[in-house]
Amino acid sequence: MIRTQFTDTFGVEHPVLCGGMTGLGTAPLISAVANSGALGFLTALTQPTPEALAAEIARTRELTDKPFGVNLTILPTINPVPYDEYRAAIIESGVTIVETAGSSPEPHMDDFNRAGVKVIHKATSVRHAVSAAKHGVAAISIDGFECAGHPGEDDVPGLVLIPAAVRALDIPVIASGGIATGSGLAAALALGACAVNMGTRFVATTEAPVHENVKKQIVANNERDTVIVFRTFHNSARVARNSISEQIVEIEKRTGSTFADVAHLASGARGRENVLAGGDMEGGVWWAGQTQGLIHDIDTVENVVGRIVSDAEDIMRSQLALLS
Amino acid sequence: MIRTQFTDTFGVEHPVLCGGMTGLGTAPLISAVANSGALGFLTALTQPTPEALAAEIARTRELTDKPFGVNLTILPTINPVPYDEYRAAIIESGVTIVETAGSSPEPHMDDFNRAGVKVIHKATSVRHAVSAAKHGVAAISIDGFECAGHPGEDDVPGLVLIPAAVRALDIPVIASGGIATGSGLAAALALGACAVNMGTRFVATTEAPVHENVKKQIVANNERDTVIVFRTFHNSARVARNSISEQIVEIEKRTGSTFADVAHLASGARGRENVLAGGDMEGGVWWAGQTQGLIHDIDTVENVVGRIVSDAEDIMRSQLALLS
Repeated sequence: MIRTQFTDTFGVEHPVLCGGMTGLGTAPLISAVANSGALGFLTALTQPTPEALAAEIARTRELTDKPFGVNLTILPTINPVPYDEYRAAIIESGVTIVETAGSSPEPHMDDFNRAGVKVIHKATSVRHAVSAAKHGVAAISIDGFECAGHPGEDDVPGLVLIPAAVRALDIPVIASGGIATGSGLAAALALGACAVNMGTRFVATTEAPVHENVKKQIVANNERDTVIVFRTFHNSARVARNSISEQIVEIEKRTGSTFADVAHLASGARGRENVLAGGDMEGGVWWAGQTQGLIHDIDTVENVVGRIVSDAEDIMRSQLALLS
Repeated sequence: MIRTQFTDTFGVEHPVLCGGMTGLGTAPLISAVANSGALGFLTALTQPTPEALAAEIARTRELTDKPFGVNLTILPTINPVPYDEYRAAIIESGVTIVETAGSSPEPHMDDFNRAGVKVIHKATSVRHAVSAAKHGVAAISIDGFECAGHPGEDDVPGLVLIPAAVRALDIPVIASGGIATGSGLAAALALGACAVNMGTRFVATTEAPVHENVKKQIVANNERDTVIVFRTFHNSARVARNSISEQIVEIEKRTGSTFADVAHLASGARGRENVLAGGDMEGGVWWAGQTQGLIHDIDTVENVVGRIVSDAEDIMRSQLALLS
C-alpha cells in the first residue's frame, strides 16, 4: 500500500486515477477501477442527458461500493450543453469527487463547494493550475505533453511540468500524461506528485468498452506512434498515428488551411466511433498517449492497478539499497 | 552518497554528468564538475585543432585529479572536421571516458575499444540507442524532448523515453533532458536510469564560462521560455525564446522556406557568441532546456551537485514513509 496526500484526501486505496475519457467513462470500466482500489471518473458528456448521467451513476453504484467520480469537461461547443443541469445531476446523485477539464472550473465552483464536492481540475500549464487553485479546487491533475487528447499548446512534458506545478501550488498535484507503469508512479511521487492519472493504460484493459482491435493496437504501437493534430487551430490533440491523422497533419501544413479542410477527415465523434466501437483502425482519429510505448499487454483493471502499485513499492524499497 | 551502475562502471562519485556543451566544455567548468564528484566533458570541437584539445585536456588535469571525459560530436559539416585526429588526441591523452553525440559512433568504436576508452553515446530515440549498443558503447545517454539543443524529431520526453530505453537495452542508461534538481535525479533512478545528464543547470553556475546575463536569464525564464527552431529542416534545436528564435519559427512556417532564409538570423557560432560571451540576449539563438523553469539560482558547481544529490537522497528516504 502506498499512502499519500491523495489517498488521505479522497479516501481512495491507491494513488492511481483513471481520468475522464469520453465514450469510455461508463459504468463497466469505472466500477472496475473503483473495485481495484483506484479512482475512476464517469464522463458526464458521454451521457446524452443529465437524467442519463444520473442513471449511469446509479448503475455504477450497483457494481461497486467504493468511491468513484464524474468528469465534467467544459468546452466551447456548437450546440449548447446544459452544464448547469449536468452539475446538478452530479450533486443530487451524491457524488463527492469531480474532475473538471477544458475551460476554467470557476462557474461551477460555488455550487460544488456548497455541496461539499471535491474538485480535481485538469490543467496543462502551471498558470492555469494556479488560477484554478485560486477558485478553490481541491487538487490539480497536471497534464504533460505526453498525454493522449489535449496537451495544450505549451509542449512541456511531465519531468519539468510536474515539479514546476508542485512548486507553484500548495494543494495536492496529480501527475497526468506519460505514466503507465509502476516506475512511472514511483517517478511521479519523487517529483512531488501524490498520485498518477492514466488514460491510455486503462484503454488496454479487459473491461474497457472499446473494440479489441484498439487494445491490440495500443500494445503493438510504440512511443513514436502518436501525432498531434489541430496544432494549426490552437486546439492540439494527441491521437494515434494512422493514415487519417497523418493526412490531417499534412493538410494543416498548407498555408491558410482551416478546420473545415480537415473536419471531414476527423469527422468528430462518428470517426472516433468507427475506431472505438467498430474496430476500424483507419476509420478516424482516436486519442492515444505516448505511453503506448510502455504498454505491453491487455489485462484486467485489477491486475493492472495491482501491478503498478506493487512495482512502485518494489522500486521505492530497492532505491534505499543505492544509498550509503 | 548514491551508488549506481554508473558510479561503479565509471568510477565517479555521484550519478551526475555535465554533458558536452560546445563553447562551454572547457577546463574551468569541467574541472569544477570533476572536483564536485560529478562527470563532465570537455568538448573536442570547441578546440580549433586536435593539438589544442590535447592542451585543454592537460590544462584540466592541472585543475583536478578526478575523472573527466571528452565529448566528440559527430555532425555533417561544410568544412570537413579531422575527426580521426581528434579521436587520436583523446586516446593519446589517456582520457578513458568519451561522450559521442550526433551521428552513429560506429566509425570510432574500434579505436576507442582497442584503447579501453568507455563510450557513452547520446541518443534521442530508442532505435538509435539500440544501434549504438550493438556497436559496443558502454552506456546510453537518452535525451528527451525537454533537452536543450537537438532533441531529434520524435518529440518523446523522458517520462516515456527513459523507461522505454531501459527496457530495450542491457547496458546502463543515463537520463538526459528535463533534469535539474534532486527530485529529477530521484525520478530518473525510479524510471530505471543510473544517472542524470544535465546541461542548462550547469550553465547557471558560477564557473560556467558565459556572460552573467545568460545565467540570470536562465533563472528569470520559466519552462515555457524555449522554442524549437529548424524543425522544418529536420534539424530541430531547442533554444531560448527571444526575438530571434521567434522570428525564425515564423519564417519556417512560410511555405517553401529554406535554411538560407533563416541562416542570417541564426548566424551560427557568431550569433551564439554574441549571447554567450557578449551577454546580448537578443543577439542570436542560444541553447536552453525547459529546465529553465526549475532553476532558481546561480551557484557554484559544488553546491549545485551537492544539493541535487542530497535532495535526491532525502526524497528516496522519505518515500519509504509512504509505504505501509
